[in-house]
Amino acid sequence: MTICNLPTHPVSRHKPTQLVADQDALMRIFIRPESDAARLTLLKYMEQILFGLHEFLTRHVGVTQEISLKELAERFNSTTISKHPEKKLADVIIDLIEDIAPHAVNVASPYFVGHMTSALPFFMVHLKTIVTALNQNVIKLETSKVVSVIEKQVLAKIHRLIYRENEAFYQEHVQNPQTSLGCFIEDGTLANITALWVARNSLLGARDCFEGIEKEGLPAAYRAHGIERLVVLVSRLGHYSLKKAGGVLGIGNRNVIAVEVDAQNRMDLNCLRQKIAELQDSGEKTRILAVVGIAGTTETGSVDPLGQLAAICAEHRIHFHVDAAWGGPTLMSEKYRHLLAGIEQADSVTIDGHKQFYMPMTCGMVYFKDPKKLDAIEYHAGYVNRPGSVDLGRKSLSGSREASSLILDSTLKIMGTQGYALLIEHGIEIARQFAAEIQSRPLFEMITPPELNILTYRLVPPAIRSLGRIRFEQGAAEEAIGINDQLNTITRKVQQLQREAGKSFVSRTTLRVHQYPGQDIVVFRCVIMNPMTTLDVLREILDEQEAIYGQIVNETVDL
Amino acid sequence: MTICNLPTHPVSRHKPTQLVADQDALMRIFIRPESDAARLTLLKYMEQILFGLHEFLTRHVGVTQEISLKELAERFNSTTISKHPEKKLADVIIDLIEDIAPHAVNVASPYFVGHMTSALPFFMVHLKTIVTALNQNVIKLETSKVVSVIEKQVLAKIHRLIYRENEAFYQEHVQNPQTSLGCFIEDGTLANITALWVARNSLLGARDCFEGIEKEGLPAAYRAHGIERLVVLVSRLGHYSLKKAGGVLGIGNRNVIAVEVDAQNRMDLNCLRQKIAELQDSGEKTRILAVVGIAGTTETGSVDPLGQLAAICAEHRIHFHVDAAWGGPTLMSEKYRHLLAGIEQADSVTIDGHKQFYMPMTCGMVYFKDPKKLDAIEYHAGYVNRPGSVDLGRKSLSGSREASSLILDSTLKIMGTQGYALLIEHGIEIARQFAAEIQSRPLFEMITPPELNILTYRLVPPAIRSLGRIRFEQGAAEEAIGINDQLNTITRKVQQLQREAGKSFVSRTTLRVHQYPGQDIVVFRCVIMNPMTTLDVLREILDEQEAIYGQIVNETVDL
Repeated sequence: MTICNLPTHPVSRHKPTQLVADQDALMRIFIRPESDAARLTLLKYMEQILFGLHEFLTRHVGVTQEISLKELAERFNSTTISKHPEKKLADVIIDLIEDIAPHAVNVASPYFVGHMTSALPFFMVHLKTIVTALNQNVIKLETSKVVSVIEKQVLAKIHRLIYRENEAFYQEHVQNPQTSLGCFIEDGTLANITALWVARNSLLGARDCFEGIEKEGLPAAYRAHGIERLVVLVSRLGHYSLKKAGGVLGIGNRNVIAVEVDAQNRMDLNCLRQKIAELQDSGEKTRILAVVGIAGTTETGSVDPLGQLAAICAEHRIHFHVDAAWGGPTLMSEKYRHLLAGIEQADSVTIDGHKQFYMPMTCGMVYFKDPKKLDAIEYHAGYVNRPGSVDLGRKSLSGSREASSLILDSTLKIMGTQGYALLIEHGIEIARQFAAEIQSRPLFEMITPPELNILTYRLVPPAIRSLGRIRFEQGAAEEAIGINDQLNTITRKVQQLQREAGKSFVSRTTLRVHQYPGQDIVVFRCVIMNPMTTLDVLREILDEQEAIYGQIVNETVDL
Repeated sequence: MTICNLPTHPVSRHKPTQLVADQDALMRIFIRPESDAARLTLLKYMEQILFGLHEFLTRHVGVTQEISLKELAERFNSTTISKHPEKKLADVIIDLIEDIAPHAVNVASPYFVGHMTSALPFFMVHLKTIVTALNQNVIKLETSKVVSVIEKQVLAKIHRLIYRENEAFYQEHVQNPQTSLGCFIEDGTLANITALWVARNSLLGARDCFEGIEKEGLPAAYRAHGIERLVVLVSRLGHYSLKKAGGVLGIGNRNVIAVEVDAQNRMDLNCLRQKIAELQDSGEKTRILAVVGIAGTTETGSVDPLGQLAAICAEHRIHFHVDAAWGGPTLMSEKYRHLLAGIEQADSVTIDGHKQFYMPMTCGMVYFKDPKKLDAIEYHAGYVNRPGSVDLGRKSLSGSREASSLILDSTLKIMGTQGYALLIEHGIEIARQFAAEIQSRPLFEMITPPELNILTYRLVPPAIRSLGRIRFEQGAAEEAIGINDQLNTITRKVQQLQREAGKSFVSRTTLRVHQYPGQDIVVFRCVIMNPMTTLDVLREILDEQEAIYGQIVNETVDL
């Protein structure tokens, strides 16, 4: 393995020669080359990565280079692992920068406003590098030590941001090995699954001869608790991970029941109350496992009425989970934290670090109001996670884990709540300005105005719009549906052409909204989190959509 | 936020001044500072990280500095997030290197042989940095593009390493959006859960009016399929994640049944056959969900007789899962891949990238022989993961994911199978030499000799050993138990003192072994994967244990 015959010019491509892996080469890659020249080379590689990649991303404003999936699939279809080393490190790095990066997606572009991914603060790369170099495994103290301690501390910091308990509470729990304020896990999906797993086990605990659901399983638990069905109630804008949780946990994903939303796309409280009453009055022995409130729905950024949901859950003694994977960090802004009022009454809360904490992929988290709640999923093993230990892996869905907490902890120190508040406020305020811009243009129709920093709209030629409105209002529903189908085709087509052009990226989804009851409406979906995404950038994106539409009209007689 | 008033000397500590987060500062942290000076500074930080951290780790041979958990807990107990930035990036980096790293665990030390974590090839840090800078989310094509294509390719490469299907098979599936050869997930625990989730859904699929377990839930599935109990059979040395899987998936973790092992700590085939017959003959309507074979048990590194297990599973039409989280990469070695013979008949296989692929934390993977198997857990959503799309998030337990596949793909190119074979062979061969060394020392008793690169032993003063043997062989079981209890105390104490001394780290677990039926034996557990861990290093570790024991004997009259 000659990868550590470090070249003096790491930027140059090497001629193909037979590379060999031998014991000496192996030792060299595991230790730092001691010579200054080798050291310089390793640093040069890092410079290439930091700036080569960054320059590409800056130069390449668009979100992706034009190359079809088919072409890519044909290029990446060899499936054998070479016996001898195929490439030197230097060449692998060059390939990644010059060949792979241009076909990746430039999620850092201000014109990439389609998903919950954006540019990161530059120092995130440094922090992740530190985490990698230390390579701690937070499953247990013996492979993480101080990092487990820091993880408990940062869990307490975010718990406090959400729940605002008093100082005595946090002093009791921050470093208490017997209690857990939350846990880190790969992402929001697994955080939601963890929350419902905990709720399931708490609800179906041991009683009489029954030793608890986790041990005896769901059918035995239903018998012991006299239940025939367990359900989860969530607004129909809930993330699909909640259905997945229903499936994985064995309650069945059809028992994750969608509750209708109001005109603001928030869970309709009357519908919820009615649903609860129905379930309780039905002949079936149904128990409600949890009500899930959403702080920032994936598609529209709406926030459910958390305080009122909490009150209803308290009244009926139902576990109240809040999926704040997206909206959680809004709590950093004094100006907008009121939008999440009531979250402090949740039994559990999901927040993602890789969304509005601007951390690199990935960092899911779930918090629990009651520091004993995670006991419901505790596991031990002989060699690790012994009872009473400080091992964080005792109460977690996953096992081995990266020290993401170290990144979040450092970032909180570097940014302060003020730094995050600026980002959050930028997103919310630009989204509002963008909404006004959309409304001012005759070619567009606002579908869901922004509550946080997500909005949806669609393309509606003015002639069709007035036609649609009138016909619909006169009760000619079928005709309205026909018109909306036509509009769906237009929006779908424009979104696709804009994506393929590669200059900017707005995502697309299909919604049911109060304006058009019972109809599927295809919309552009905009997520504004990149601080470089200014109103001017967004205007350009609308201009481009107008231009694409103009082209379609010219080319097609149908529309 | 003054973090980007980049200091000219990043190594110097800054005097505390009021740091402020404002819009200008915010913009600066999201874009690369354009001046050469700023660029140089960012690189300086990286140099500090790469070499400062590395030099600390090299200088500091031991595995952890002496500081009690209590002291650490007292230092990390503030739970408020400062409003203003607390620290500049430069200071955060210095803190991490000078203050945090010394209290982390030096898992890269050749003297750290206690867990499945070791030194990494140096370039892993570079590769992870690239992944972070690109920040792709592999949940969907729209946030990853070529990376999704590369992920499918590398999944095919590892699938081929395991299953060795023919070229036509791989050409059909490598880039086929309709099929999946496996998936990446946070770690081995979640990979095992995924495998059993898939097995559960496949077994309890739709029939007649029943729409399948995932939709209708476990109690309905049991009724529809006429089942009263679902069980998983695994050797009693199976990883605790399998019990966790039983709990999470709703079948109940007591239904994950431990099968006795033979004298080589491999699943006893007669016991398995007997257990299957018992379950089938019992009045209960029991179905066997899966038999799990282990390729490298966590505690002893044993490999179950995979080929014979596969035959038994085929005979009874049971899903055969292999947990090769640890042992999987042994397949890279032509010399030792026969140890895993039969793995190619498994229905599913777990392998961890952060174990013997030497990747940074964390990278779990699960592979399926049948490329349609993952369909059993498919989910869609309106805004993403649309049916028929190339989005990899459609068939996965998690949602957002880091592009770990890019690291594995690059590493396979840099190392070749030859490079990995050297590492694997080093571990196995040094473990054998170490076993011989242990056996040659009168103070130690080998408990489980290495099959791969894990072994366990314990401290047994010669006088006690002969005494124990004789008494035990004469049937004086109670006395033998008393003696083993005493030996357990000794081994436990020596392990603890050695860990606390911080020079080296051997882990500890409690085993039941054929030599001492029915007794809990406390052992030292050694995992040899660091290529810098030579026999000399291991001898030093034994010397230290002998010395610690000598001290105990001098201080205590009891032993």
